[in-house]
Amino acid sequence: MEIRTPYLLFLGDARDQLAAKTAYGVRVWRPDWCVGQRRLAECNADCGIPDMTIKEAQAAGVKTVILGVANRGGVIPKNWTSELVDAVNRGMDVASGLHTKITEIPELVDAANMNDRLLLDVRHPTRNFDVADGVKRNGKRLLTVGTDVSVGKMFTSLAIEREMHQRGMNASFRATGQTGIFIASAGVSIDAVVADFISGAVEWLTPENDADHWDVVEGQGSLFNVSYAGVTLGLIHGAQPDALVVCHEAGRPHMRSMPHFPVIDIPTCIEANLEAARLTNPDVRCIGASINTSSLTEQDGRDFCKRIGAETGLPTVDPLRDGVAAIVDNL
Amino acid sequence: MEIRTPYLLFLGDARDQLAAKTAYGVRVWRPDWCVGQRRLAECNADCGIPDMTIKEAQAAGVKTVILGVANRGGVIPKNWTSELVDAVNRGMDVASGLHTKITEIPELVDAANMNDRLLLDVRHPTRNFDVADGVKRNGKRLLTVGTDVSVGKMFTSLAIEREMHQRGMNASFRATGQTGIFIASAGVSIDAVVADFISGAVEWLTPENDADHWDVVEGQGSLFNVSYAGVTLGLIHGAQPDALVVCHEAGRPHMRSMPHFPVIDIPTCIEANLEAARLTNPDVRCIGASINTSSLTEQDGRDFCKRIGAETGLPTVDPLRDGVAAIVDNL
Repeated sequence: MEIRTPYLLFLGDARDQLAAKTAYGVRVWRPDWCVGQRRLAECNADCGIPDMTIKEAQAAGVKTVILGVANRGGVIPKNWTSELVDAVNRGMDVASGLHTKITEIPELVDAANMNDRLLLDVRHPTRNFDVADGVKRNGKRLLTVGTDVSVGKMFTSLAIEREMHQRGMNASFRATGQTGIFIASAGVSIDAVVADFISGAVEWLTPENDADHWDVVEGQGSLFNVSYAGVTLGLIHGAQPDALVVCHEAGRPHMRSMPHFPVIDIPTCIEANLEAARLTNPDVRCIGASINTSSLTEQDGRDFCKRIGAETGLPTVDPLRDGVAAIVDNL
Repeated sequence: MEIRTPYLLFLGDARDQLAAKTAYGVRVWRPDWCVGQRRLAECNADCGIPDMTIKEAQAAGVKTVILGVANRGGVIPKNWTSELVDAVNRGMDVASGLHTKITEIPELVDAANMNDRLLLDVRHPTRNFDVADGVKRNGKRLLTVGTDVSVGKMFTSLAIEREMHQRGMNASFRATGQTGIFIASAGVSIDAVVADFISGAVEWLTPENDADHWDVVEGQGSLFNVSYAGVTLGLIHGAQPDALVVCHEAGRPHMRSMPHFPVIDIPTCIEANLEAARLTNPDVRCIGASINTSSLTEQDGRDFCKRIGAETGLPTVDPLRDGVAAIVDNL
């Protein structure tokens, strides 16, 4: 899945800012690629970049229209379709993060075929993968893991890639989810791969590389989230990580959407992830903890990080407040 | 995936007995359902049951033709297709364990539509599943796990179901792979489910049940096989097992097809599986070890089981030689 840049962020008639959070993530992490946004009547989201029509986007050199919004009821409205058809007729690709497949909209498919343009459903892998073989590859890999879903694994991975680049290190963010794929302009939506090929897909995504090159691999799920732990384990085995960074949200009352599951403590989480990772890389180490403390006051957040740092012996940061330099220092 | 019984085992032109091992497994475990076999010219396999034409199978009351063979090069030969079309025209369903989908053979699909018959590709789940919620369900569940793939998990599960039935216990074998699905006449090919839904599919497969009912769940892969461990972990979490039985092949030199991975020792394997299973069932216990000792002499096999029994403190049997009564005794 390779996406051509730069992008027009298509917000459609997103009902609020949250509905456009994928687009907003792309805007935050890849401002240079986001030349404009397209908002229809009744759109209540704003990525803070110039509004453009499809025609203006064409003039601005946009290569791909990004559907980075949640749509209502899984149906793509007619007025979206006509805009997207117009974009394809004007020579742009369309990449969608919706569950609903744009590759199943007949008039859009016809337009794409006629104009030889790509329609990319980034949630739905189209290529086939081999099963993993676990053979050691050259190059270094860092993987973010977590106590649960939605604890900042993508954010932390991107912050680490940025920090590495600022230090002149050779590093690539490797995306495993839809927002990450738009940000990396490539990747595999790993939770949508057929179960047999989870770790094989990750081996493909993080191939052999130069000895000093770091893949910074976006984690998914958690070994302690019963819905997604299989995905997480395959991701760990396929990535063969040299370094893990554990992510957590301070103050989460229980596993997301599951009041019957308590959140695991961080030291136990680290040890379980290291144990799993040793199967394909016996030398793996956990090099830091990344905590989303946004639910706490600043002082409580700092105290929380300090306590986790003491418990784990690891550099512990809120990546938004502190940056991740302390973690990269510990590589 | 529900398959109507009884069956005609379609062996086609299987080049040797190994190519028909799926059919043979069905014959061994469900002799009452297998009323005949259909062998074409050049077939070198034999399930030891009466040869029948499609017409004779119809007269014998066959409900489903089972394709339980490996086909050459992934292509279904023309002479197979005409036989299968004939079966459908005579009112039978067709269930296939091939990678190649029979639901993509146009003339067979036409015949099935015309006659309102089912074509079942058991390797390819067709229904959608929810993500797992990990909520505790009534009923008891036993899951086979293993040091590697192909160490006897299906055989052990079926032997345990049979032993339970002989004792008058309320038990159901739950199939997670193609051969098992033919044997159970239902099930989910769990390694072909989309990664996000592994554990959710297993929750669906092993639903709430009577307090004294045992689901005997066929395990897949191994936590220590890097190709498939994600599937295994999702299976463990979804099954919420009360009891694990660990399976192993004595004398295996290394992980199957992976000379660079040694086979894990049994006590470590047990502990890792228990640790994973505790997430959805804190009371899980390992109740026995099942060893395929066919590569050893009988005396060496007995010594091997004795040694593992001493190391683990568990009833340890070769299920083919000893049966599994000792394991069921330990429930």
